[in-house]
Amino acid sequence: MNKVRIVLVNTSHPGNIGAAARAMKNMGLARLYLVAPKVFPSDEADSRASGATDILENAVVVDTLEEAIADCQLVVGTSARERHIPWPLVDPRQAAEMVHEEQLESAFVFGREDRGLTNEELQRCHYHVHIPSVESFSSLNLGAAVQVLAYELRMRHLALQDAPIVASKWDVPAATADQLDHMLTHLESVLSKTEFLDPKAPRQVMTRFRRLFQRAQLDQQEVGMLRGMLTSVDKLDDKIK
Amino acid sequence: MNKVRIVLVNTSHPGNIGAAARAMKNMGLARLYLVAPKVFPSDEADSRASGATDILENAVVVDTLEEAIADCQLVVGTSARERHIPWPLVDPRQAAEMVHEEQLESAFVFGREDRGLTNEELQRCHYHVHIPSVESFSSLNLGAAVQVLAYELRMRHLALQDAPIVASKWDVPAATADQLDHMLTHLESVLSKTEFLDPKAPRQVMTRFRRLFQRAQLDQQEVGMLRGMLTSVDKLDDKIK
Repeated sequence: MNKVRIVLVNTSHPGNIGAAARAMKNMGLARLYLVAPKVFPSDEADSRASGATDILENAVVVDTLEEAIADCQLVVGTSARERHIPWPLVDPRQAAEMVHEEQLESAFVFGREDRGLTNEELQRCHYHVHIPSVESFSSLNLGAAVQVLAYELRMRHLALQDAPIVASKWDVPAATADQLDHMLTHLESVLSKTEFLDPKAPRQVMTRFRRLFQRAQLDQQEVGMLRGMLTSVDKLDDKIK
Repeated sequence: MNKVRIVLVNTSHPGNIGAAARAMKNMGLARLYLVAPKVFPSDEADSRASGATDILENAVVVDTLEEAIADCQLVVGTSARERHIPWPLVDPRQAAEMVHEEQLESAFVFGREDRGLTNEELQRCHYHVHIPSVESFSSLNLGAAVQVLAYELRMRHLALQDAPIVASKWDVPAATADQLDHMLTHLESVLSKTEFLDPKAPRQVMTRFRRLFQRAQLDQQEVGMLRGMLTSVDKLDDKIK
């Protein structure tokens, strides 16, 4: 991720620069280049960065796109629409794959809020990337566009580390088949006592219970809870007798 | 996509409601539910919606999360951190797959800017979804979080339609192998005339040229351009003789 820079060209609203910095830091990116921003630095950028001020402080401010990408080996420009001369076009996921696979010094270039990148700027890009918005309402907010690309870069980065992208740390081990079987046997016995089970067709009900509890992937504590509940019904039944 | 609603709980900043509406409309979502928003409607929401005002106008404002999700069959809540009782947890891509696969009436629930969803609210969700941010700076802007989920829903929606997600409409047909071969033969002849080719080891140079032009996937107009260039060198050579 440290070989990837985000380049914002001629940004009008400093709030968008702050939003871009926040999105970058959330997703593990650090290198921001600003080509002739209208207003920078600015309190509004700091405020919207919401703690990602280090990225703003380290931002490289230059006059031209050429300077921002001079040492880049792969330059990908965001483009909202088809251009006069077609250009190699990828979606954000493909762009992220390309960047990680090639391990090149890479830049993602984002244009002006109202007009995007000029044709000349787009022609300096090896690839164009298009976020697949609906045609009738296609223009994303600048910070939102940075968020989507940064998110795809992070998803790919995590996938390459071969780690689960998000992992729930379950606090109790999963129940074994044996534990589940005992619980179901206990359940069947209780349901016979309570006369919930129709002795003529007991199996289908139990099959549905089995399906339910297997689908839920019970943990051992939950099996214990269910067993405790069944035992409490047993005791009730004992009292009645 | 019309079975999916976005639910924002107790949003403080109306600008974030507007940003969420814009992100939704960009990605083809339409149904917004607002649970007890601090300020709504508001000019700031309208301004940040940037044309997605229809989504704000049709937003359903309710007092409680229960009302917002009453008729939902699948409820997915955004969660920044691990909770006391672990809950089934997915990443945004898995969440989008689930929603499209099951075709259920679904809700994505987003919490407050500062504190997210309460434990009680999270327990009303079938699944929790976590956007895989870096641990040391994990809190996304609300609009940015809606953008990421809406983007994944759209990516999945487009994938299911079996259409290319983004497609560059190339304006000229790709060159055939035959056209490429003729061009390479022409090139070799010209390079011999200009004495660029070493007659002792001509093949490796031509192999590299072949690799280059095949990799570039030349179109027929480009082959024509290259042939024209080579012919112009032929003519120059004729004059010299």
